[in-house]
This record gives sequence, C-alpha cells and structure tokens, in this order.
Amino acid sequence: MSDYRRAKVHLSLGPRSYDVLIGPGVLGELGGVAERLELGRTVAIVTAAPVSRLYAPAVQSQLLRTGRAVHVMEVPSGERCKTLRRAGLLYKELLRAGFDRNSWILGLGGGATGDLAGFVAATYMRGIDYVQAPTTLLAQVDASVGGKTAVNLPAAKNVVGAFHQARAVLTDLDPLASLSARDVRSGLAEVVKHGAIADRALFEFVADHAAELRAREVGPLIHVIRRSCEIKAAVVEADEREHGLRAVLNFGHTIGHALEATQRSPRLRHGEAVGLGMIAEARLGRLLGRTPAECEGALRSVLTACGLRTVVKIDDREHVLETCRHDKKAADGRQKVALLSELGQAELCRDVPMRALSASLEAIEV
Amino acid sequence: MSDYRRAKVHLSLGPRSYDVLIGPGVLGELGGVAERLELGRTVAIVTAAPVSRLYAPAVQSQLLRTGRAVHVMEVPSGERCKTLRRAGLLYKELLRAGFDRNSWILGLGGGATGDLAGFVAATYMRGIDYVQAPTTLLAQVDASVGGKTAVNLPAAKNVVGAFHQARAVLTDLDPLASLSARDVRSGLAEVVKHGAIADRALFEFVADHAAELRAREVGPLIHVIRRSCEIKAAVVEADEREHGLRAVLNFGHTIGHALEATQRSPRLRHGEAVGLGMIAEARLGRLLGRTPAECEGALRSVLTACGLRTVVKIDDREHVLETCRHDKKAADGRQKVALLSELGQAELCRDVPMRALSASLEAIEV
Repeated sequence: MSDYRRAKVHLSLGPRSYDVLIGPGVLGELGGVAERLELGRTVAIVTAAPVSRLYAPAVQSQLLRTGRAVHVMEVPSGERCKTLRRAGLLYKELLRAGFDRNSWILGLGGGATGDLAGFVAATYMRGIDYVQAPTTLLAQVDASVGGKTAVNLPAAKNVVGAFHQARAVLTDLDPLASLSARDVRSGLAEVVKHGAIADRALFEFVADHAAELRAREVGPLIHVIRRSCEIKAAVVEADEREHGLRAVLNFGHTIGHALEATQRSPRLRHGEAVGLGMIAEARLGRLLGRTPAECEGALRSVLTACGLRTVVKIDDREHVLETCRHDKKAADGRQKVALLSELGQAELCRDVPMRALSASLEAIEV
Repeated sequence: MSDYRRAKVHLSLGPRSYDVLIGPGVLGELGGVAERLELGRTVAIVTAAPVSRLYAPAVQSQLLRTGRAVHVMEVPSGERCKTLRRAGLLYKELLRAGFDRNSWILGLGGGATGDLAGFVAATYMRGIDYVQAPTTLLAQVDASVGGKTAVNLPAAKNVVGAFHQARAVLTDLDPLASLSARDVRSGLAEVVKHGAIADRALFEFVADHAAELRAREVGPLIHVIRRSCEIKAAVVEADEREHGLRAVLNFGHTIGHALEATQRSPRLRHGEAVGLGMIAEARLGRLLGRTPAECEGALRSVLTACGLRTVVKIDDREHVLETCRHDKKAADGRQKVALLSELGQAELCRDVPMRALSASLEAIEV
C-alpha cells in the first residue's frame, strides 16, 4: 500500500481466507466490508466498557445505515467475561433476538471480548459469521489473527474453545489513544515475541523505536502491527489447527501463562507475564543447549526499553510449575515448549524436563 | 464385504475421513481401532445408563489391555444430558483427570449421549479426538454419521454446537437387543426418511421387511443401517457444513422438531415426531405443487408397517407453528424446508409461507 497510514494483511486459508485491515479510522469501513462480504441482515455487537461507550454507537449507526438490524450486547470487560455462563447468556440473547444461521457477530474490544464473542460465533447454531474489531494493542498484534476462540474454566485459561476464523478483522488505531500506558506496554510484549521467533529486524525495530511506540506514533505502530500480523498469518497458514509449527507462537507462554494465572502480588497483565516468560524460556533454552546465551540479554534489554518488567517476586514457585505441567500444549503427559534457536527463529522442544523448567525461573526472580 | 454380517461405510472428507464399522460385536474391535488410528493414551468413555452398565466395563477393560488410562464418565440418559451445564461438568472432570490435546473421548450410547460427548470433544482444548459407538438404532442410522454435535438451550434444541467429525464410528448391533420396541420403531423412521429423500429401493425394502426389522433380524438391519449411512455419507461429503444440500436430510424435521419440542400429551420420541413431520411435509409439498400426491400415502403406509403413528392430537397448533418459525434452518428470516420432488428425491424449498405450513398440519391431525 502506498499510504503509510494503511496496511492490509491477507490470511490465505482456502474458503476461510480473510483480510486484516490496519490503520486509523478503519472501523469506519465496517459497513462497506459487511456489504462486500454479503454478511447477514442481523448483527450483534458484542462489546465491553469502556470501548462500548466510545465506539459502539458509531459502529451501530453505520451498520443501521446499511439496513441491518443491530443488537448491542454488552459483556463485562477483561477476562471476567470469558466464562461458559456468559456464553450461555449470549446464546439466549441471540435466540431471543431471532438470530439465525445467516446472522453474524462483531467482536468489538480487547482480546478477552474477542475470545468470548468468537467462541459464541463458533458454536451458535454450529457456527455463524464473525468479524473482529480489536481495540487493544495486544489484541491487534495477536489474538485477533488466526481464529483461536475460547472461554476459561475456573482452574485454567482457554480450556474450552474452538478454531473459528473471522470473515474480516478491522484493526483501528484510534482506540489505542484511550489505552492506559500499561496496556500499550503489555501489547508490545507480543510484538517482541513475534520478532524473537521469526524476524530479527522486527525485534531490532522495537528496540530502536520503543519510545515512539510507547508514545503511540502511528507510523511505527502500523509497522509493528502489520509485521506481527504477517508473521502470525504465515504460521497459521502453515498450521491452522496447531498440529505442530503453530506452537512456536507460544514462545514465552508456557511460563507466562502460569505466572499470569498464579501470581497474586503483583498481579501481571498478559503481556507482562509473557515478557517474563520469554526471559525464563530463553534461559530454559540455554540450559537445554538450544538457545544462544545472548538471547536472554537481548530480550531483557528490549523489554526494559518497552517499560516492561524483567524480574518479579514469585508468590509460589511450586504453583507456577504445577500450572506449567497442566499447560494445554502438553500432549500425552509430555511437556512441549517453544524455544529460540537464535534471535528471530524458534523451534519446538518436546520432553522438556520439569527440573530445567524450575531452574529457568531463576532468570526472572528478584 | 463378503460377510453379510459386516459392513463398512467410508466417509471421504479429506483429512477428516473415517470409517463406520457395522455389525454384531464390532465394539470388540475398539482396541484395535484405537491402535490403528494411534489414538492417545488417555480416554474418557462418556456414557449413560443402562448402556453404561451393560457395555462400559467390557469396553473399558479392552482399552485398558492396550495400555491406556480409561475414565468412565457417566451422564444422565436421553436429552436431559444435553445442557451447557453438563458440558461444563465434563470439561472440569477431563481437566482434573489430566486430559490434554492428545487424549480422546468415546461416546457410548444413544444420539443424545453422542451429541453431548461430541460437543465436549469438539470444544475441549479447541478439539480433541472423538470416537462414537452408537447403541440405539436411531443413532446408528443418523446421528452418528456426519459430525454434528450439540447441546440444547431451554428454549430450543441443538442451538449450541459444532461440526466435529469422529475418527471412527463403531456401530454394534448387539445393543439393539436391549432396546425397547418403541425405540426400534423410532429408529426406523429415520431409515424411511433416508429412503424417501434419496433411495426409493430402500424405502420399499423397509415397507417389505418391516416385520423382520421390528424383530431385529440382523441381515435386514445391517442392510438398512448400511444404506442409511451411505446415503448420509454422500450428502455430508458434498456439503459437510450444511451450506445447502445437506439440509435435505432435514426432511420431516421442521415440523417434526416442532412437534417433539411442544407436544406434551402424548409426548413423542424423535423418530415418532419425524414420522409425523414427514407426512405433514409431504402434504406441504403437495400444497406448494412440489410433491406428487402419492408420497403422503406411501409414507403413511410404510410408517404404519413400522408401527409408527401417522396421526396425533396436537396440543397447541400455534406453539408448533411458532417453533417452526424459529427453526434454526431459517436464514435471514426466510423459512427453508426440504420437500420431496418424488419418492426417493428431495430438494430445498426457500420462502415457504407460514400459511401453507399451518395447513399441512391437517395431514396428521386426528
């Protein structure tokens, strides 16, 4: 694209192919997208405060202008919405509103809102159309691409879910203006991850432009969002349902998820936990002879530039390790972890010994 | 196959292809099937009484002999088990038992048990392997083939679900011996449906051998089960996710489902309701100039031979019609019904007027 303020990433998945449109104001194109994709006449906007207050009315009136019946369905913000109970309430609301197989859902919000809305779209009448409008940097660089949807169980995150690709993703940069600084930093952690596993140049771009990114400058933001989506798209195209390769996207997430789930003081945002997880898993790779020693330091340095923490006082090591053991990437009891083979490249390592996992936590402990 | 007591139907769905093995005693081959398909080392047998008491122990010990960890998870029998709450309890039980992405589920029971077990397999960790062992005639000739899974909402059947093909289906005739005569008759209704929509010879076979079928003679049973599976397989292969053609399998089900859902006295089994639904929808087709007049009489006569009712005192016509209107086969508010174009052939009819639907009920009213 010639306009540096716009980008488009195409996911090539046969009949499930779709575009991610990136730029300030792209939400304004939703009506046109709905017409072009011939989406149904009835749509639910699943959204959470404060996004709902800021953006739902404009989106709603835009869809109304295309002659569609629009229902705004508000859900609690953040992970709290990702429950089976909440999905059940939405199913009932959709049924009551007369939604049928041609109706569709727009997920407008952060990653959690998208995960819930996508899961409901994946399972209502065995799957209806879904469009995603991610409004946090974290969702824009990660959760909105690739079709993973899920809700949580009290005991574990994302245990119940489905693969359900969106028909389109509208990644509007305007909502980033209202994000907290902490949420911007948290989103940058996943960009760092994409660089670390697949693109050393992206990794270095973040290191060099951390200040502009934290200041939400449009040019650098579009660049890192586009590259993140392209990297994720390539992996998902090669392995849509995570039979193998796709698991490299989980670099930093085995330990990261466990920290996010168990840590009480301080509590960690997803990106903060993944940042710490990457450092620990770089150490893990070094302990197993897979990862060059410099990766850990490079991660520490770029995360620091992004304003992310690189150490933490772990509440309960045993709980963290126990949670890693039940990670859903495990298969037939064997732990499978994505490790860096160099900066910009990752590989899967099966049969990671719990002892090494335990020792790797030293890399992030205060 | 040369052995008339065995049959195999193959579903050709690319990477989701699988076999349906049909015959007395085929459940005894489960261990071998699990080894051949390299199914995981941990398995849950989801089952309901009385099947659980009769068959689960033998199935369990057979899988234990292959070195697998086996968990028997009992659920309520019949439609009562098909709730989101019950799915939630199973997810928790699977998680507690350490199930991961390589673990798998065996659905052992009737259609409802299979629908629930399949839905849980479709959504636990975004989809794990599923094997189905249908033990009622109804499930053997219909629900076990084609990958539809679902749970109900209080207001409507099968509203929440997913397409998730089994890795294998083991259709053992031995459990049919313990079925009630009413359940055998109910199963025959779906065989009649397969004949009516796709194979006049099958339709006539049922008419000519109704007595042997009701007496559960193995030869005729295998024939109608095999033909039903073959007919359904061909439709599913052409339209796995019901974008069009697959909806012909719903012949008799628009009105049938509505009767099943609303009728209190007498309550109707699924097959009984579908039998009545087929007669009414043959009338509907005649009213719309789509279906030859003789179809209604032919259906009435074969259903009578099967011991199925052809008339009913409808509790509440308005409730039946209202339920038809909310049928999930509707799209953008337009009612879509499968109608016979002749005996042995069906087609989809869009925009069926509610008035005609209402008038068609006269075909089955006492």
